[in-house]
Order: sequence, then C-alpha cells, then structure tokens
Amino acid sequence: MHFRKPLLTALVASLCASGAAVAQSNDPATLAKIRDAAMASDWPYQRLEDMTDLVGPRLSGSPGAAAAVEQVAEAMRKLGAKVTLQPVKVPHWVRGEEKAQLVEYTGRPKNVTQNVVLTALGGSSATPAAGLTAQVIVVRSFEELKERAADVKGRIVLFDVAFDQGMADRGLAGPAYGRGSAFRTRGPAMAAELGAAAALVRSVGGADYRVVHTGVTRLDENRRIPAAAVTAEDAMLIARLSKRGPVTMKLVLTPKTLPDADSFNVIADLPGTDKADEVVIVSGHLDSWDLATGANDDATGVTASMGVLETLKKLNLQPRRTIRMVAWMNEENGGKGGATYHQANRATLEKQFAAIESDNGAAGRTFGVLAGIRPQYEKLFAPLQAALLPIGAGVLQRRDVIGAGDLHALEADGVPSFLPLVDSSKYFDYHHTPADTFDKVQPQDLKSHTAVLATLAWYLANLDQPIGRAPEQFR
Amino acid sequence: MHFRKPLLTALVASLCASGAAVAQSNDPATLAKIRDAAMASDWPYQRLEDMTDLVGPRLSGSPGAAAAVEQVAEAMRKLGAKVTLQPVKVPHWVRGEEKAQLVEYTGRPKNVTQNVVLTALGGSSATPAAGLTAQVIVVRSFEELKERAADVKGRIVLFDVAFDQGMADRGLAGPAYGRGSAFRTRGPAMAAELGAAAALVRSVGGADYRVVHTGVTRLDENRRIPAAAVTAEDAMLIARLSKRGPVTMKLVLTPKTLPDADSFNVIADLPGTDKADEVVIVSGHLDSWDLATGANDDATGVTASMGVLETLKKLNLQPRRTIRMVAWMNEENGGKGGATYHQANRATLEKQFAAIESDNGAAGRTFGVLAGIRPQYEKLFAPLQAALLPIGAGVLQRRDVIGAGDLHALEADGVPSFLPLVDSSKYFDYHHTPADTFDKVQPQDLKSHTAVLATLAWYLANLDQPIGRAPEQFR
Ligand SMILES: [Zn+2]
Ligand SMILES: [Zn+2]
Repeated sequence: MHFRKPLLTALVASLCASGAAVAQSNDPATLAKIRDAAMASDWPYQRLEDMTDLVGPRLSGSPGAAAAVEQVAEAMRKLGAKVTLQPVKVPHWVRGEEKAQLVEYTGRPKNVTQNVVLTALGGSSATPAAGLTAQVIVVRSFEELKERAADVKGRIVLFDVAFDQGMADRGLAGPAYGRGSAFRTRGPAMAAELGAAAALVRSVGGADYRVVHTGVTRLDENRRIPAAAVTAEDAMLIARLSKRGPVTMKLVLTPKTLPDADSFNVIADLPGTDKADEVVIVSGHLDSWDLATGANDDATGVTASMGVLETLKKLNLQPRRTIRMVAWMNEENGGKGGATYHQANRATLEKQFAAIESDNGAAGRTFGVLAGIRPQYEKLFAPLQAALLPIGAGVLQRRDVIGAGDLHALEADGVPSFLPLVDSSKYFDYHHTPADTFDKVQPQDLKSHTAVLATLAWYLANLDQPIGRAPEQFR
Repeated sequence: MHFRKPLLTALVASLCASGAAVAQSNDPATLAKIRDAAMASDWPYQRLEDMTDLVGPRLSGSPGAAAAVEQVAEAMRKLGAKVTLQPVKVPHWVRGEEKAQLVEYTGRPKNVTQNVVLTALGGSSATPAAGLTAQVIVVRSFEELKERAADVKGRIVLFDVAFDQGMADRGLAGPAYGRGSAFRTRGPAMAAELGAAAALVRSVGGADYRVVHTGVTRLDENRRIPAAAVTAEDAMLIARLSKRGPVTMKLVLTPKTLPDADSFNVIADLPGTDKADEVVIVSGHLDSWDLATGANDDATGVTASMGVLETLKKLNLQPRRTIRMVAWMNEENGGKGGATYHQANRATLEKQFAAIESDNGAAGRTFGVLAGIRPQYEKLFAPLQAALLPIGAGVLQRRDVIGAGDLHALEADGVPSFLPLVDSSKYFDYHHTPADTFDKVQPQDLKSHTAVLATLAWYLANLDQPIGRAPEQFR
C-alpha cells in the first residue's frame, strides 16, 4: 500500500487527534480556510476593545497589568485552550508629578516663564519634590556631549535629535526609531556619568502635536538621575532660546521605583497531535506604557495572537505541533517575561520549533512575514506566501539582524523567529504616547493581521520539513 | 493746465508728505514693489519668533499678555510708527489643576480606573478642590439633551460631537468649526440650565493625537458650572463604555476668575497724507489661549500686520489714508478690545474707511482676499488682484455673512472689512491646542501672508473711489 506523504500525514494526525478535531494539513484549501475565517472574525477586535477600554494602560506592576493577565487568561480558558500563568518578577516604576518651566533666558519679559511639556522616562529617578533648577545644555549627538563634557556637571542635558520621519515614510520606520531611541535609552546614562543633574531627550516619533513619547531609559543603578522626554516643539524652543543665551529650567519629576512586583506571562496552548512536544509560539506583549491604553503597542499583537487560537478552535482544526499563544509581560521596561520563558525552556530549546511575535501594531496594512531563518529554508514558505497573497500579504523577507523584543533570548539561542510585516509609517507617531488608543486600529487591519498570524502559525505547526535554526549571526 | 487725476493726486500727496517719503499711488509698479518687498522680508518672522519664544502664551490678564503689549509697542516705535496704547478692561481667568478619572463602569476590573485627558474651557467655574464625582450622560445634539432633560440633574453632560474634518478638507474649515464650536460655546450653559453638575465637550478640531482644544464657553453669570474639553479619543471611550452601562467620573477643575484686569489694544499709525483723517485698519489679535504660544492664533495675524508698516517704512512709502496697525486684546474670551475701539470711534465711523483682520493663521497658502463689501464695488479691486496674482493670491471673494472677530462691531456699523483667504485645512488641528507653536509656521507662508496684507492695506489707503459701506445684511 502506498500513500502520498501529505495523505499519510493527515491519516496519522487524524488518528492522534483528540475528540472531534479534524486532521491537520498545509494544503492550500486548509490554509485558505484559516485565512478566510480570520478575515471574517470580529473576535480579536472585541478582545482589543475589552483590553483597551476596560483594562486600559498596563505598565508592569500596575493594577492594569494584573487585570490584563486575568482578562486574557479568562478569554483563553473560555476558548478551551490550556492556560498557564508563568510567574515573572517585574520592575515596578510609577509615574509621579511632572512639570517644567523655563524660568530664565535672554529676552525673558518680567514675570514671564514658559511651560515645557514633558513626561518622565521609565526608570527615571525623582527630583526633589520642590523641583531642581539648573541651566540646560543642548547637544545634538553623543560626540557633542563628549566634546562639551566639562560643561555638563550640575546641568540639565537635552538631546535635541529629530526623529527622521522621512525614513519612516520610505518604509524605514524601524531603523528611524532605532536611531532616535538610542538617545533615549543610552543618553541619560551618559549624561549621568558626566555629572548631569538631569537629562531630557527630544521625543522619538513623528507627530507634531506637542506629543510626548515616553519609553525606557537604561540608567546605571548607582547613578540614576531624573530623565524625561520633551515634545519636539519644546526641544526646538529650548534650542532656539539657547542661541540667544543661557536657559534655566525648573524641573519637577516625582516618579517612584517600588520593589519588584509579581506578574505573569499568560500562556495558552492549543495542543498538537503527533508532534505535540514541539512548540510554535505566536505572541505579543501584554504590558504597555502608562500614558495610553497601548492599543497598537501591543494590544493588537496580543489580541491577534489570541485570535489565532480562536480561529483554529472555531474551525475545529488541530495542528501537529502545539501552537502556544503567549502574552508576554514586561517587554517595555525590563524584558523579564521573555527572559523568564527562555530560562524555563533553555534545556530543550530544540523543541521551540519557531516563535512569532507581533509588536509593530496593526495601524496599517499587514503585507507579509519577516523571517529570522537561514537562506536555504526560504523556499519552504512558497505555499504560505501563495495562501497570503489574496489578502495582499504575500511578501516574505528574511531578517539577518537580531531583534530586541521578547524573542531576543530565544533567537540568540537559535529559535527561528517570525514577525508580521506591517506598514508602520504612522506607528511611531503614536508609539509610547497618550494617543496610542483603540480608535487608531481599523477593524479590517486587525483582521488581516490575525489572518497572517493564524495562517503562519498553522503553517509552521504543520510543516513536514525542518526549518533549521536562526541565522548564525543572531548568536 | 490739466492734470490727469492720479497725477494730481500724486502731486498733492508729495506736497503733503513729511520728510523724504515718496508719493503714494496704486499704479502697478508701486503695488508690485510693496508685494515684492514683503516677499523678501524676514522681519515679520523674526517678530513671530520674539512673540512666541520670548513672551509665549498671552491669555488676557496674564503676564504674557502684558509683555506682548510692550513688545509690540516697542517694535512699532522702533519703526517710527505713532504708537497708542488704548486701555481695555479684560476678563482675567486663570487655569488651575485639571484631571479626571473614570472611577466606575461596567466591566471595570478591581483597582482599575481610567484617566481622561481634558482641559478647562475659558470661563469654567471650579469643582471643589477634592473634585466632584458624578455619572456621565453622553449626548450627540442639543435635541438629545432636551429629550433627556430629566436625566441631567446632578450629572456630568458630555457633548460627543465629532469635528467634521471632511468639511475642512473640502475647504470648509470655518463652517466645520462653527458647527462644532456651538457645542463648546453654548452647550455648557444649556446643561447648567438643566441642573448639570458639570459639562464636557468633545474637542473641536481635527487631530487624532489625544489633543485638547480649549476655547471660551458662555455661561450665565448666575449659573456657572465646571466645563472642559475632553480629547476626541476620551469622548469616544466614554461613549463606548456608556453603551456597556453607567459611567462615573471623578472630575477636578480648579480655574479661577479674578477681577477684570487692565490691558490694552496696541495701535500703531503710519499717518496718511491728504486723507490722513481716514483710517485703514490692518490687524490681528494679540491675546492667545494659555496652552500654547498662539503662533497661528494669532501671532501670525499681528506680526504680518506689523510687517505691513515695516514694509512701507522700508520703501519710504506714505499712504493717502492713515494705515493703522491694531493688535487687539481679548479676542479669545470677551472681545473687549474690538468693542472698546468701536465704542471710542462710534461717533465718526465714516472715517474708518476699511478694516482688515488676519485671524486664520498662516499655516498654509494665502490665496486671496475675502471682502465684506457690496457687489457693485467688487470691480474696483481688479488692479489689486492683478498685483497679487503672481504670488498666487489673486482671488477676491465677497463675504455676505458677518464675522465674529474683533471687527464684528465695526462691520455691524457699516465699516467694510477684509480678511486674507488662507488654506486652513490644518488650522483646526492646532487651533486652541498646546501645539499651536512657532514651528507650525513656514517662513514662506508668513511672507506671502504679509505681502497680501501690505498690498491690500496700501491699495485701500490710496483708492480714489469710495468703496461704500458693509453689506446691508451685516447690520
Ligand atoms: Zn511594543
Ligand atoms: Zn484667533
């Protein structure tokens, strides 16, 4: 007797499958069915509304983060997924009062001061409750900071580097963000090392609505200073006034760093059949910044990942490998969720077949897949591309630079990683601002985003062939 | 001996002109010279930078407003203009603390509350210092408010009416603003009459960056309530949550209304020659809202008007009629500057030959002139249109609805009024928000704006023919 291989696979699977779940396959009809079911479903958008409207902001350690863990776990249990809460110790930083004024500058009229719009960066220390007052020194590069090292002591350093919206418009939002955010993540520590009283960075993002963009800054534990993001407009104002003469700012920032808090990664498994011990992760991060409800960063990633399981459950499809939805905790200011998972699975990483994370929002078209695989495996994905082409998501690009999100540790240890490709030219207008809200997500965009994740996750979970490990240069 | 009339006019003028000022004329060469001089000048842009960077916000009664009066007067004296400070008593309203939280709603997780981004409206009264807590009732029209009158008592009324950006994009920004701002100006008073504890309006403007748009609200002196503008995002959130069940808000607004303050209209005259007793006003308003530096509302109007005198002085041109730059005080929350000027000149309004005001910003192309004249006078402006055509500003439209700005009382008493036509599709994104800042004005836009005002003011000041009075329906 002779079976064609796919048929044999299907037969084996149907024998192993529990209950009424039908056999798994990567044939075009099954892929199309998954894609179309996701395209027709409002379920992820309803979960997005629940997460952003009912829970709201979800910074690690906050009541919102705890509520989000429960909300996602509950929704996944309701679907019939196998839910595990993986404990994660997370930093617990809480925003306080934040305000600033220019109290002295050349040409200042009597009794006039100018308010500066800013927001503390995650990890910032506090000023005295009454504020600190110091001269501002404006620099436009790390080099300039070093050249002016002698001027820094006791001053407030402002890194006035504009976000390159032109790059974002040309499809290079990620690299533009990388360039800009370097000043946010590393600038304050460098200023602190030179004795600065505080550090400010120009907000990293494209909008010109006097919008603050928060984010984490990495300060040396023993040399923490107050650090904040000013709006682009305020950075430009201070820079212009500095050309007229010295500018003095009164700065009040009173965030608190509390003891590390107990939190969780939410893990929800759709168990596989004959290869159930192998895992395909599909994920987003559950925590968000505190200024908004984190709709695109990253409730879309989480709810689309949840939607993968909902789609397969609805179709009564069971994959060969286990498809594991993960809602990571603490991507934004510590990465403890990703690190904890990596640590827990490091002895058997070969069983982590592949990992998908969505963390570029869904506020634009999803047009394909970015794959952290070696070149020789690229051709394996042609059937997937064919299945996604009808929804305009047939692009497959290889990635040869390691990412920095929750998958970082897994990738560095060889787990092939996949990200959806999303038009993110507007993403950094809203990213980490008070404006990252539910209304920024179009239902249709979340549907196609979920369709890409669902079809990709299924495809990976049912591949007969190995896809190797992550590119050498990720190690 | 027989002179052609223009030549005679020129001769008379040159005899009357003081010092070395050359004779006035509306010939094409002179109009072109004025236009081109304004197009080549950085002076208004420098004044704009001074006003927004050094003085900053200029709400009536504030130190900024007082500093702006001095700054403008000083700059005009330096030009050699005849400067008068006309005393104006102005309302003195000062913003306080402002915050709000949704403290109860259906589906609220334990310990979770949601912050609402809002800003008090000018004229708002204060809540108790500790805030007030009440249920929110969402309405979408005045009719709906009336239908639900029985539900209003003790509640917080939210007028959730979206700004019609589509209208703005089709060149109807003004009418779109008019529709939206009716809820801001009149809504809170109507809610107060029905016994509401407070009133909120959805911000009137086009941006989706969780931006608050403040502005004045007209409350009955004897029935004042706290009133604020929430962002579009927050209005939508509250409306969505209201569909799930009752929503309760804790609201803290602590603005103060202080005794009326002493302030001034700044008047700077370039005296005319043979018709010096007739006046052509060119103006903008000097006060601004307090959230930003009021670059487009209305520092551009004031500094472009100042630039009219600078241009003519530089060219050593003296008009037949007096050209009067006016920087009005208190357009935003009382209109006391315009009313005071009207009152002071009401006995001799026939001497107010014409009045120009720029109050639609210069954050877009200036493409012509909107004229509050009767139809039969339209053809008089053909030479002006010809002179402005090379800079793309050759449009002349007649206006037959009376305006609401500083010229309102003059127009109602028959003074013909002129406004520059500006592409204002983006104007209401920034209007009355924290983002109305210097960087929103392109130098080139302010140059052509000034060129239109200068050429128009000169043209009016030198016309041989009468232009009649404002349209009948303005009365
Ligand atoms: Zn993210
Ligand atoms: Zn205005």
